[in-house]
Amino acid sequence: MNTPRNRRIVLAARPDGEPKPSDFRMEEGEAPAPADGQVLLRNIWLSLDPYMRGRMNAGRSYASPVEVGEVMVGGTVSEVAASRHPGFQEGDIVVGYAGWQDYAVSNGAGLVRLDPSAAPVTTALGVLGMPGMTAYAGLLTIGQPKPGETVVVAAATGPVGSAVGQIARIKGARAVGIAGGPDKRRALRDEFGFDVALDHRAPGFAEALKDACPDGIDVYFENVGGTVFEAVMPLLNDYARVPVCGLIASYNDRGPASGPDRLNQLMWLVLPRRLTIRGFIVTDFADQHAAFQRDMSAWIAEGKVRYREDVVEGLEAAPEALIGMLKGRNFGKLLVKLADPSV
Amino acid sequence: MNTPRNRRIVLAARPDGEPKPSDFRMEEGEAPAPADGQVLLRNIWLSLDPYMRGRMNAGRSYASPVEVGEVMVGGTVSEVAASRHPGFQEGDIVVGYAGWQDYAVSNGAGLVRLDPSAAPVTTALGVLGMPGMTAYAGLLTIGQPKPGETVVVAAATGPVGSAVGQIARIKGARAVGIAGGPDKRRALRDEFGFDVALDHRAPGFAEALKDACPDGIDVYFENVGGTVFEAVMPLLNDYARVPVCGLIASYNDRGPASGPDRLNQLMWLVLPRRLTIRGFIVTDFADQHAAFQRDMSAWIAEGKVRYREDVVEGLEAAPEALIGMLKGRNFGKLLVKLADPSV
Repeated sequence: MNTPRNRRIVLAARPDGEPKPSDFRMEEGEAPAPADGQVLLRNIWLSLDPYMRGRMNAGRSYASPVEVGEVMVGGTVSEVAASRHPGFQEGDIVVGYAGWQDYAVSNGAGLVRLDPSAAPVTTALGVLGMPGMTAYAGLLTIGQPKPGETVVVAAATGPVGSAVGQIARIKGARAVGIAGGPDKRRALRDEFGFDVALDHRAPGFAEALKDACPDGIDVYFENVGGTVFEAVMPLLNDYARVPVCGLIASYNDRGPASGPDRLNQLMWLVLPRRLTIRGFIVTDFADQHAAFQRDMSAWIAEGKVRYREDVVEGLEAAPEALIGMLKGRNFGKLLVKLADPSV
Repeated sequence: MNTPRNRRIVLAARPDGEPKPSDFRMEEGEAPAPADGQVLLRNIWLSLDPYMRGRMNAGRSYASPVEVGEVMVGGTVSEVAASRHPGFQEGDIVVGYAGWQDYAVSNGAGLVRLDPSAAPVTTALGVLGMPGMTAYAGLLTIGQPKPGETVVVAAATGPVGSAVGQIARIKGARAVGIAGGPDKRRALRDEFGFDVALDHRAPGFAEALKDACPDGIDVYFENVGGTVFEAVMPLLNDYARVPVCGLIASYNDRGPASGPDRLNQLMWLVLPRRLTIRGFIVTDFADQHAAFQRDMSAWIAEGKVRYREDVVEGLEAAPEALIGMLKGRNFGKLLVKLADPSV
């Protein structure tokens, strides 16, 4: 094999608020050569996910930041283009974190081989991957929905939110989904089977949410924050659970928000209503991975869980796609198609 | 028995902010006569507790408010002055909720007979009663302190805080206690054995708290809110637990606080640090009552848990004592001595 060219997108500058295209830079060079014990990965699919915005900031959050000049982090489905690793063969399809680039080398750590005949390989980045697992573990472990309870989730046509709603219904709860715009709202009912679908951009949203939850809210799966959380707060029932998995509405915020100070307001709900608010990251629940794979595969096979993908073409489209996702422009699990598999 | 006179303190007006003496009114009349199946209670001890402030407000919190003109709610130790109930005899000493008055009738619901030879009867209102149980259940069930972890609690010479610190140490954790003023600070170390004692009124408190918690905070038992919580927030470790049992610093607040809005700041700790913030009320853990009684009695007998009482004399002193407690003026479990037992 001739040494292929490798295009890669690096972090050019730390964003000040919303990321701009100039915060990213495309670089080109030779693909790295695998050393003994390594594989060369040719990336086919790149996953774009909200957590990436956090990794563009300086300072440790729950993971180290991407350094300026470094390749942007990202989950990938790749083909093994060359293997000097006993565990992988040329042509294997694997899921891992090879980043925003055409090629990468790996020592195999964190790579998982996929069976393309079992499920479309893109599902390993969505409903059967990190987002699906986030929904599964966060909802079931922290949210613990019971039959007849009301579960609310925003960004509900996204890969996490859509799984949260469908799993809630599998567990016998009522699912109220929130998304932006009439098309997404329609998809919540028609594709994902939410009991009630709401458009957070429509006038009177808070009132509509109240009407949609006549018995209050027992589980609010928090992935957006902002005005949705504000509308949810007064509706939370005694003993309600709030798994906190994301706050996308404020990912681009700079500095403290203006008042009034709602911290006290929240604590005065937590206390008398005995709320549980608990942050989590999917890796906290790694021990549930086998159960997740088993359950989610079965639910997909039974038609109980559906998923939606939003595909953009070409590595060069990734920055704009990420910027758009942070504004809610994606419609389903956002994937960048980097290449066709060779077989 | 001649019908005795009964003095009772009723809620005269709902407080606007801090309660004033004129929000209470002493009334006098004949003591009620017990009907068949009832006992007449002669109250000996009245417990004053922070939750009473909440019950003076209109609107349902986690319990119905005291209505204007009604007797103030309160835990009591009483002597059975007359019994027409098969389960109680004249002379029995019982703990219950007979309120701010000299006499009350009861059908026996919620009354528990005490053995005055087993423990001073006042402990049934403090370390062996609701406050002790609050500390025990909240700390062990939600806080879950592990050996070597750091537990922080404020109002730490009070009946809840002092028990939290001592139970934390029994479980092998480091206990950092916060109280107001040098005398209380001294008591935290000398009486209650906290590892570190801090005065939240001293200049540089936030810095002192940071120095006192070189490994961060694993459990913050929240009973005050306000500036203490503000100093605690940045020190919370990954996976820290925050049982929320009270917010006494804001019990007298009216309306929303001025900005900046720290709600987002809190949620941005909850998410990456995977915090658990959970409100509770002692009655949520009624099933732990037997375990609490067994453990706490043993710890007191072994000298591992000590308690401090702050006694004021006479029913007429109760309003000022409650007002003072809400400003941190009590020093230990606040009790009003209403009468001597007849035997």
